[in-house]
Order: sequence, then structure tokens, then C-alpha cells
Amino acid sequence: MGPDDSAATTSVGEYLLCRLHDLGVRHIFGLPGDYNMEFLDQVEAFPDIEWVGNCNEVNAAYAADGYARLAGLAAIVTTFGPGELSVVNGLAGAMAESVPIVSIVGGPTTEIMDRRAAMHHSLGDGDFDRWVRVAREVTVAQATLTAGNATVEIDRVLGECWTRQRPVYLRLPGDVARQPVPKPSRRFVRPAPAGDPDQLDAFDTAAQRLLNGATCPAMLVGNLALRYGLGAEIAALLADRHWPAATQGLGRGLLDETGPNYVGVYDGGDSVEPVRRIVEEADVLVCVGVKFFDWDGLFTADLDPARIISIGRGASSVGGRLFEPVAPAAALARLHSLGPVRAVDWATAPDPGRPPSARLDPASNAPISQARLWPAVSELLTEGDIVVPETGTASFGVASIRLPRGAVCVQAPLWGAIGYAVPAAFGAATAAPERRVVLLTGDGSLQLTAQEISRMIATGQRPVIFVLNNGGYTVERAVDGRHQPYNDIDNWRYTELPGVFNRQVAVDSYLVGTEGELARVLAGLGRGVPDRPTVVEVLLDRQDLPAGMPQWGRETTAVDYQSTLGLAPRLTWRGLPD
Amino acid sequence: MGPDDSAATTSVGEYLLCRLHDLGVRHIFGLPGDYNMEFLDQVEAFPDIEWVGNCNEVNAAYAADGYARLAGLAAIVTTFGPGELSVVNGLAGAMAESVPIVSIVGGPTTEIMDRRAAMHHSLGDGDFDRWVRVAREVTVAQATLTAGNATVEIDRVLGECWTRQRPVYLRLPGDVARQPVPKPSRRFVRPAPAGDPDQLDAFDTAAQRLLNGATCPAMLVGNLALRYGLGAEIAALLADRHWPAATQGLGRGLLDETGPNYVGVYDGGDSVEPVRRIVEEADVLVCVGVKFFDWDGLFTADLDPARIISIGRGASSVGGRLFEPVAPAAALARLHSLGPVRAVDWATAPDPGRPPSARLDPASNAPISQARLWPAVSELLTEGDIVVPETGTASFGVASIRLPRGAVCVQAPLWGAIGYAVPAAFGAATAAPERRVVLLTGDGSLQLTAQEISRMIATGQRPVIFVLNNGGYTVERAVDGRHQPYNDIDNWRYTELPGVFNRQVAVDSYLVGTEGELARVLAGLGRGVPDRPTVVEVLLDRQDLPAGMPQWGRETTAVDYQSTLGLAPRLTWRGLPD
Repeated sequence: MGPDDSAATTSVGEYLLCRLHDLGVRHIFGLPGDYNMEFLDQVEAFPDIEWVGNCNEVNAAYAADGYARLAGLAAIVTTFGPGELSVVNGLAGAMAESVPIVSIVGGPTTEIMDRRAAMHHSLGDGDFDRWVRVAREVTVAQATLTAGNATVEIDRVLGECWTRQRPVYLRLPGDVARQPVPKPSRRFVRPAPAGDPDQLDAFDTAAQRLLNGATCPAMLVGNLALRYGLGAEIAALLADRHWPAATQGLGRGLLDETGPNYVGVYDGGDSVEPVRRIVEEADVLVCVGVKFFDWDGLFTADLDPARIISIGRGASSVGGRLFEPVAPAAALARLHSLGPVRAVDWATAPDPGRPPSARLDPASNAPISQARLWPAVSELLTEGDIVVPETGTASFGVASIRLPRGAVCVQAPLWGAIGYAVPAAFGAATAAPERRVVLLTGDGSLQLTAQEISRMIATGQRPVIFVLNNGGYTVERAVDGRHQPYNDIDNWRYTELPGVFNRQVAVDSYLVGTEGELARVLAGLGRGVPDRPTVVEVLLDRQDLPAGMPQWGRETTAVDYQSTLGLAPRLTWRGLPD
Repeated sequence: MGPDDSAATTSVGEYLLCRLHDLGVRHIFGLPGDYNMEFLDQVEAFPDIEWVGNCNEVNAAYAADGYARLAGLAAIVTTFGPGELSVVNGLAGAMAESVPIVSIVGGPTTEIMDRRAAMHHSLGDGDFDRWVRVAREVTVAQATLTAGNATVEIDRVLGECWTRQRPVYLRLPGDVARQPVPKPSRRFVRPAPAGDPDQLDAFDTAAQRLLNGATCPAMLVGNLALRYGLGAEIAALLADRHWPAATQGLGRGLLDETGPNYVGVYDGGDSVEPVRRIVEEADVLVCVGVKFFDWDGLFTADLDPARIISIGRGASSVGGRLFEPVAPAAALARLHSLGPVRAVDWATAPDPGRPPSARLDPASNAPISQARLWPAVSELLTEGDIVVPETGTASFGVASIRLPRGAVCVQAPLWGAIGYAVPAAFGAATAAPERRVVLLTGDGSLQLTAQEISRMIATGQRPVIFVLNNGGYTVERAVDGRHQPYNDIDNWRYTELPGVFNRQVAVDSYLVGTEGELARVLAGLGRGVPDRPTVVEVLLDRQDLPAGMPQWGRETTAVDYQSTLGLAPRLTWRGLPD
């Protein structure tokens, strides 16, 4: 192909955008910076991909994370140095939670880097690999693009992003974005996870041996089941084989929590009793894409590894014996085929989130308590909602209720960064504008990333935002420093924030302190995306904790500060193979 | 010493606080997190060190940077994982700009890390060194503390922080904070930078040879001259030897810009003509702690390295020949002794910031222009002010004016992260509450870190905040994307932000669009710390650029995007030895 064969030539930047488009990306998040604007010009010019600016890069990374959970994959663009280092935290979260994000960094030109010039946004020491070394800790593949390597490297790195469902890093030097490369001859096909047929057969044989004669198998699902799109196949298996299934916090939104097979959230010794028994008394427990860590039961799960079949990212295991590479979907299909129909029925627990007394009293002047709030939230939620509970009281509150059918839960319990929820909700709503977003955040968390509410309103989103105002970091009060001033924060006028962020768009804002006020506001919300963005500030006592949090707080205090724990987890210290 | 000898025993956390106190730290910034609260309890209990919470960790790092520039050294506390990764950008900035910050991270317990447990705030992979490896790229010394190594490692790492004037990293596992260690037997003495007497003598001899017969020597100062506290000695040398001196943007605030020896800001070919000639036509140029990079003249400085004497962090050089280790203060003292009195007088440039026509017309209804704004800012500033110009139009504006005697300029031109100014102003005011802070930021930059205004008001600070509202990232418009939507941002009601952040404190807020309005507001401000926090939103045209920015924009466009520059800097590509 000659350089004048323009029909078959494109630029490096456009090639990258084509590949992202093939992967389902329709919006790109980030901020302009002087090293990235040649590429941003290409983004603006590219049909069917929209630039969505953020207020800062921390928020951009969280927005991308929320977007990827809905759209399948996300991309962010930042600038070399300050920009890219501000997304390191968000990329680490995406690594932990297995969320595929392509982090594109506009870098200095190839010549400038080759000459090791002292440049702004660097340490001035000529070392242009520093931030790549940082990126290696929080992404699974990296490349610095040149005209010569671009097509191969882009395809390799995006392939890794997709198959491993984790973030990747592409540095696009300022002079490379417009350099010519051959146009892709065909669409980028999402590569299938690797699998070895012999390993799969061996897995099958071992699983069959374990499941043979099982009378009370059960299933536990985690986030990788969501990420590898195994929801329909899991639902079919559960229905056909009459198995009960629990979810980890990480896996919320995969199972139909209103259906007959769903039993609840399992988090080891902190689980409610019926769920704990169904999971721990199963003669075989099939774990699909689960991740055990301290906060979801690693130290307290009374599970015999010999009775666990686990489907992981690249490896699956039976009773601790590893088979790899085995693709998750293939392993699951085999289990469906060979799994026995469960002989023993199970006692379905009543929905703990909706006790008969849950209805709020519109005439009550009693202060709102966590105990009364969450059943009311449960009543509010409807099919297809995107629920975004911030780590803290909100995540405990949502853990205590059942989600409606088809609801998505955007949360990051393993990474657990407060401040995630607001930008993640912005990203999720960008991916699915037709769905209602119900964001539940605390005052402390909101303050980290509050400015992204500005972007929600400016881009026409109409979320329902609950600000749970309990005067600070109550999640930290539950661990330590119950009365310490370091957990107190400034008391903003949260209901007035939208008016400061936007001069045009009308926002419905409510400040509620009593059960009656809350009841009346919730009654007016209805279903579906509201007509206007809505903010509900809920005043709560700073020491009031939702169900589960007191016990969690005591356990966390011990694990975080005691020199010797005396723990002997039945699972390994690392949980199950990933 | 026995463990029961309580008089001579303290805890690891208290030992660290004692050492920080010895180094002048009176405030610690950061956020609580579940891994760091045992230490935060010790901070709260420690006499004479105050905990100052921030809204998020990005802001905490910038606040610490601003604090260190006034107080000499700063400390931040964050939590393992999300907390510490959010300060990486700020620490990188402190590395670039040479600002000593002690980053203290509350980590998991020693046992948890030894067992490689899958923990929240990690990737769940048992690798607890990931964030230490990240820290290695942005700090000059690191340690993970144990009861056994704490006293030695704390002293080593703090010593490195001080002598190298750069950030360091200390991880304090949750179980270690309260473990006993011997009390320090004496105060921590700031270690002097290393120096070898023979190297100093050799430097002296070489410098003498170069300066011998010089008739028009001149001096250029950078940020290390500020950091190593060389201001008084430099002033004495200039006065005694009758030398003219220019400053880099990095070194603003060191020289008395109202005095007879000051000539202006030197930034290579972008300098105003009288300054450029004095620097480039010097027969010997003494550079004290300077740092050349692309934006302050690296590519355009017409300087002969053979005529440069440079005093750096650990090495000094004469005509390119390096002498190390040589302590900066010692090298400077030698130059003072041997430097000749300058024989040739120089043409002092008129103060470009205060042309005779600078006075604003209180009756004018003309829109405010950048050209009219900056002389008016220059009129406003008075002795001892802390001036905080954000990177962008504000930094160009402040580069065009002279600072009053004793003014401090808090800016980070090498790292160049927008969003720095607001939290840095908060940190600087925390260190020097008796001085007026004049913060000059743009609307785009403000939105990155706006919430720290909440902390200013809540802690009783009364800054004067100018928000230069030009509808987006005008600094980026000057480089590329002059009319591209990615440089436009949401138009907040900036004057109403303080009222949302605080329900109690009254704030004076002004929205000004005309020269007359600005004149009347400025006339009312007076000198010294105002009675109330003050916000002045100034409406500016989005394409209006301050002096110097158009040329800078063209140069940056070329350097950032052209494959081949055809540059041949007379200095090396790395500038001078650091």
C-alpha cells in the first residue's frame, strides 16, 4: 500500500478510535491537556464517539469505571504526568474489580523522549518511562505507540483489556496521533478467553466426580460472572438444576433477586443465617467468578475447599486442583450439562429488606433512622434501575435489601474508595441514558468528587441523588475514632449544590429529616427517569449504623490493628484462584 | 532500656510525630481511612501538632505542598491503596519542584502483609509492595516501619527528605503505630547537605579562573535557592558585588523585586528584551538552583555553557565541569568572597507590570481585559502577601508583574498541574495565618479542586480569591483547540460556592465584568488579611490572552506535536546539572 493510497490509509488516532468503536465505546472521558489535543481533535471529528469532559482526572477514571460496567468497556484520555497520575487510583480500582478501561495518555513527541529533554509535566530528569512504570502496577498491558507499531500494539493491548477484563495503558506521543497507518481491513473481533480442550475435559471429569451423588449443591457468584457475561447461562443452570444461588457483594445485579433461586448476599460469618447455611452446608459449592477478601468473608467463611468448584478468569478448579487455561463460559456450560438436579429443597429466607412494617408513615415526625431508611429505598427501586451505593453506610444499606429484577448495581467493594459513587453514576448514566440512576452517597464521600454532579446536569442526565448527611465519615466511626474530630467534616448545603453548578437547569431538591418528610418525597418520585435531576438530602444521626455495620466495624478494627490475629481461614489467605 | 522503663519509652507513632515536630511541622494534612486511624488518634493527642483534614487526597497533597513552601516541610497521612494512590500526582509535583513532603501511609498489619492476605484496598493478589513500587517513582526515600527499624528508618527517611528537599514515603502498618520504641534522646537536627572540602576548593579555583577579569557578571535564581534558604546570602552578594539578578518563574519570591539589583523574569527567548540581554550578555552567569525546562527557556536560551557557574542540589559546576558533593550554601559563600564588583552598569527595565496608564478607571464600563487586569493586581499586592497564581492565564499574568518586597509566590510551573492553586493556597495559609493570601485561579482549574475552599472557610482563613472566568481552559486554547468544545466547561455560580460550603461564615463575594466594577472592588480591599473571606469572580473573554501567552502557545504547539523540531539547544537537552 503506497502512502498516496488514501482510501486504505488512516491515522494512528483514527485507527485507535475505530478499534474502540468496534469494542462498543461510544463516549470517551477525560480532560484536555497540551500533550493530548491532537488526539482530542480526532475524537471530536470521529463519527459516533462523543467526547465527555470531566471536572478532574480522578473523576474521569471513576466515570469510565461506571461506564464500562454498563457498556462493556470504557476509554479515558489524559495528559502525560499530572493527568495520567491522577487516574492511577481509579485504574487500580478497575484492576481490583476487573473493569476494562483503556487509559490513553497523550505524551511528548518521540523525538523529545528520545533526546531525554527536560519537559514540563515530568520530573525534568529526562526519564520518560517513570509514569509507564507506575502504569505497570495498575494495568495488564502497556504500549507507547509509534507509526510503525501502532496497529499491532493497539490490537494487542485492546485484546488484553477485553480478555482479561482489566485496564490497559496506551501512550500516544503528540506527533504520532496524525501519522498514517493502514486502515483496518475488518472489524476488531473481541477475542475469546483462551481455553485448552484437554484441560476443559479434565476439569469436566473432576467436576463430574465431585458432583456425582451431590444432593444439595449451591452456587455463589462474583464480579467476574458479570464481566464475562455469564448471567443468562447461570440463570438457565439454576432453573434447570433447581439450585439455590447466593451472590457476593461484588456480584450484585447478576442474579434475579426476585426469583426462586436467589437466596441473598453471602459474606462468610457476617451473612444472615439462612444464606450462610445454604452456602456452607452445600455438598458442592460452585463459585463463578468469585473473589474472597477480608470484607466479604475471607476470614470467616466456613467453606471446605475440597467441596468447591471454582470458575475463574483463566483457570478453573475442582477441590483445589487447577485446570488452565479454561474459558469461564466453557467451564460453566460443562457444569450445566453434568450438574445434578438438587434433591434437597431449601428454606428461602424472607426478604430482609422488606419487613411487613417497612412502609414509612407519612404523618411521622420521628427522625429518620438507618433501620427505616433502607426498606424505604427498597420500595423505591424498580426494574432496570441503576443503583449506585457508595462504600460506607450506603453499601451496607443496599446489601441489606433485594434489588428488583434487571437492576444493575454499580459499586466497588474490594477497592472501596470513597468518592467513587458520584462519578461512577455519571459514567453509568452516560452509557444507559434511558435507565434511572439512583445514587446513594454519604456527605463525606460526596465531598471528594462532588463537582461531577455539574457534568451530570450539564449533559442532561436526571439522576436521583440521595445524600446521606450524617456529619462525616460514619464508616470510619464504625471502625475507630467514634467521637474523634478527624471523622467530622464541613456541613455543606447539599441541596444547593446543583444550583451553583448550573444556571439553567431546574433541579428538584429536598431536605428531609423526619420519616414523614421522607415518605412524602419518595411518594412523589414514581418510576423511571424523573423529569428533573433530583437531590434528596437525608439527615441521619452520626452514630446510627445500618444492619451489619457494627459487626463489620469490630472485625475490621481487629484485622487492621492487632499484631497477631490468630486466624486460620479455611480458604487460603488469598481466597480462591482468580 | 527495659520495656518497663516508661519514662524512656514512646510509641512508633509518637516518635514519628516528635521528629516531624523537630522539623517544624505543626499541621498534618490528609484523610482518615480504616488503616490509619490508630496513628490519627496519636496525632489528635500530640501537643502542638494539629490535624487538618482535607476534602480529598489530591487536595491534601497540594495543600501539603503549599504548606511546605512556607513552613519548610509538610506531612500528609493517607490510607493504603486508594488514599495513597490519590497523592501520587501531588508527590510527583513535589519531586519536580523540590518540595519536602513526608507521605505517611497507614498500611495493613505486618502479619497480614506477611501472609499475603487478599485485603480491601489492594488488588487482592497478596502483593503488598505494589504501592511502594509506585511510591519509588515519586519519592527519594521509602520505608515500611516495624518496631525494630522505626527509629533508624524514620531518621534516615526524614533526613533524606530534608537534605534532598524532596518527598519521602513512610508506611506505618496498623499494628506498628502503638508499639514501643525508645524515646529520642535529643532533638532531630536538620542534616546539612553533604560537601567535600577538596571538591569545594576545586570549585573555588575553577570559579575564580572564570570570574577573573569579568566585567559584567549576572545572576539567575531558581527554586533550589528558595528551598535551601539562600535568600539572605544572595541579597548580600548582589549588593556587595553590584550584580544584576534575574529570576526563573520557579524562583519567584527569592529576590527583592523592588530592589536595585532585580531585573525581571528570565525565560530564554520569551524574556522581555532588557532582561534577556542582561542575562545572555553576562560574561559570567551564576545560576543558583535553577532548572531549565521547555517552558522556561531550555530550547531558546542563548547561553554559552562555558560561561556558566551553576550551584545545584548536590553538585556545582563551572563551565560544565562538575564538582560534587558540594553544599549549595558553601559554594555560594565562596562566590561571594571571590566575585568581582561588576564594572558595567545595566539598563534597568521599567516595571512592565505597572505602566503609567495602569490605574483602572472607576467610571469605565469597558469589559475587563487581561492587559488591564494584571497591572491592577500588581497595584493590589503589598509587602508580605502570599501570591498563588494558578498555571494558565494567572501564571502568565503574575509573570508580567513585579512582586512587592517579601511576597511569597506559591506556584508549580515545572509540574504545571492545573487544580494545584486552591489547595496549595489553603496549605500556605495554614502555615502563615498572619499573611494575606491572594489566590488567582481560572474557572477551569478551580473546578478540579474547588471543594478545598470549604476547608479554608471552616478553618477561619480569609483569603482573597480571584476566579478568572473565561469559560474554560484558555491555557489549552492558546496551544490548540482554540474553538474546540473540549476546552469549554460548565459555567458555575462561583460567587455562591462559599455559601454552599459553609452555613455560618459570611463571605464577601463580587461578580465583576467591567473595569469600573473591578476598580471599585479592588479599592475596597485594602491591605493585609481582610475581615472576611473574599471571592471576586472576574468575567474575561475566552480568547483574551495575557502578555507572553500567544508566543508560548505557538512554541508549545510546535514542541508538543511536531515530529522533528530541528532544535539545537545551546544548553544540553537536560539544562544544567541539578
